Amino acid sequence: MPQFAPLQNDTFLRALLRQPTDYTPVWLMRQAGRYLPEYRATRAKAGSFMGLAKNPDFATEVTLQPIDRYPLDASILFSDILTVPDAMGLGLYFEDGEGPKFERTVRTEAEVAALRVPDMASLQYVFDAVTSIRTALNGRVPLIGFSGSPWTLACYMVEGGGSREFHTIKKMLYSRPDLMHRILDINAEAVAQYLNAQIDAGAQAVMIFDSWGGALADGAYQAFSLDYMRKVVAKLQREKDGVRIPSIMFTKGGGLWLDEMADVGADALGLDWTVNLGRARAQVGDRVALQGNLDPAILFAGPDQIRAEVEKALASYGTPSAGHGHVFNLGHGISQFTPPESVTAMVDAVHDFSRRQRGA
Amino acid sequence: MPQFAPLQNDTFLRALLRQPTDYTPVWLMRQAGRYLPEYRATRAKAGSFMGLAKNPDFATEVTLQPIDRYPLDASILFSDILTVPDAMGLGLYFEDGEGPKFERTVRTEAEVAALRVPDMASLQYVFDAVTSIRTALNGRVPLIGFSGSPWTLACYMVEGGGSREFHTIKKMLYSRPDLMHRILDINAEAVAQYLNAQIDAGAQAVMIFDSWGGALADGAYQAFSLDYMRKVVAKLQREKDGVRIPSIMFTKGGGLWLDEMADVGADALGLDWTVNLGRARAQVGDRVALQGNLDPAILFAGPDQIRAEVEKALASYGTPSAGHGHVFNLGHGISQFTPPESVTAMVDAVHDFSRRQRGA
Repeated sequence: MPQFAPLQNDTFLRALLRQPTDYTPVWLMRQAGRYLPEYRATRAKAGSFMGLAKNPDFATEVTLQPIDRYPLDASILFSDILTVPDAMGLGLYFEDGEGPKFERTVRTEAEVAALRVPDMASLQYVFDAVTSIRTALNGRVPLIGFSGSPWTLACYMVEGGGSREFHTIKKMLYSRPDLMHRILDINAEAVAQYLNAQIDAGAQAVMIFDSWGGALADGAYQAFSLDYMRKVVAKLQREKDGVRIPSIMFTKGGGLWLDEMADVGADALGLDWTVNLGRARAQVGDRVALQGNLDPAILFAGPDQIRAEVEKALASYGTPSAGHGHVFNLGHGISQFTPPESVTAMVDAVHDFSRRQRGA
Repeated sequence: MPQFAPLQNDTFLRALLRQPTDYTPVWLMRQAGRYLPEYRATRAKAGSFMGLAKNPDFATEVTLQPIDRYPLDASILFSDILTVPDAMGLGLYFEDGEGPKFERTVRTEAEVAALRVPDMASLQYVFDAVTSIRTALNGRVPLIGFSGSPWTLACYMVEGGGSREFHTIKKMLYSRPDLMHRILDINAEAVAQYLNAQIDAGAQAVMIFDSWGGALADGAYQAFSLDYMRKVVAKLQREKDGVRIPSIMFTKGGGLWLDEMADVGADALGLDWTVNLGRARAQVGDRVALQGNLDPAILFAGPDQIRAEVEKALASYGTPSAGHGHVFNLGHGISQFTPPESVTAMVDAVHDFSRRQRGA
């Protein structure tokens, strides 16, 4: 375990742990991304998305780009949510202009039976990137590690790529729940090992992205997505070298299930923009912190409108008080078409207004 | 106004009006559709989707096909949600395998200023189809008329077609709310006139499909979708020849806003499969009836699983009591890949189990 520089800004970690902060911390999902010209330049050098993600030097470079440009309060490992099934041997690839795909799918009884938790050594490039980024951050802000949720990984593994209707996996779920549960069991174990290895390598918080839990029916969500995130969270190391490692769980489109999510054991819940922050806060009480939830489309408006929407969101959440915590974020990854100066307007507005809210 | 045969099965209308019924009525969104071989045969004769929709004989033929095949409790006009902007001169067209598109968009100040409520005479083919279908039904089941919601029409009018992120219209919404409101005002007036003309032509209930309201942020949904559906509902004729004409409002992905929807004035709310029926019933109380909400993907499973899921949904809603009403449906349109025999299993299960629930 390398020695890392002491953390200079723990606002993000404190908010996740529902401790008082001087202002509301902010970061953006997909903050190291195509909307930044410096990212596009590094991406061109690397040749491909996975060429970036698999090279710790490139991954470090792009992770730090938004930290250098904006006064963000957290950084997030540059990687993909689908590294785990890739390590299972399914062959992750990207076609230009399309989402991630797998060369091989997991659909038949034999394919499910052959599925194994991958050797974490095959994901060493991720852990190397974590250590490299944490070292390069030099204590400026905390580093978030992450993975896709067991259900979200399964969606890609069964469908072979993105899907609008998820017919193949839903047919499996309803017709062969035994196969579905076996895949999810393996995924949960793999995700837990993967996140724990990221924590060992230097991640100071972890986030589980359940991008497709919101496609499930009520009842199916609890049985096939939430329960497996519960298993992951239960296996996570809660401390590293005596420091708490908070966890964040985010089901896009899961606003109806906040009450059940709040009891899973994660420290914070991500929210998309359909959720009313004030109502969500009242619903989860002091069980979890909240993260979110501006519509990324707001960043296409002018700076005045961005400021107004940031203030609305912060006012809706209200002033954090004992036992409550809020991390500002978008409700989804930032769009590649976002003007970079919109992020400046948003981040500054979060910091300014949240300090004023606290009477500073 | 033609004379129509007396209605023989009013179970659907009674449930919408929260009156007692012997069993839970059922119909399917997009029940006249590509999953039926007889539909595909008529579609081939017509040459195109709009060729079907614009010919009252063909529209009547396909509307009655599912009624002839299954013991459904309601029929729905065969048409498209986008006939109104087509009548505004935007040029609706369909490309094979893709969603609807418009030849012209409404984005600039000048384009918005030029927008008008269309002359309802240009939609006469729809009203002719309504009268023709109602006549052909001969009182077997009620006929539902419908339209897209003002916001959903605007999505297609501004984006020019379907969209995943709705960047263009959301940019307009946040940057030029004045333009957005003007489009929505015109759409609301047009939709109200359109639905009232369908009622005049013979529609016995009307449904507003808000397919894309769920893409909006909390706050924006209320201001840009819900408020305009409220305007439509307020202008609807509530009775025709002394008979109540119930209205149904359905925002896909709108489960978080049920409480506000229940006060708009519609008689019933459509629900997608993410909503827990029992909780939704408790939330809306005796303000509105509910319609939904099986995941269409369940129809890819076998008949035993379909029956089990139907029973779960009906049990979740519970036995209808005074002031409550439930219409069974899917949570979205039926998939074109659905085996037709799955619908038999579903409809029979709804009728059987709901009779047993009532102790019949």
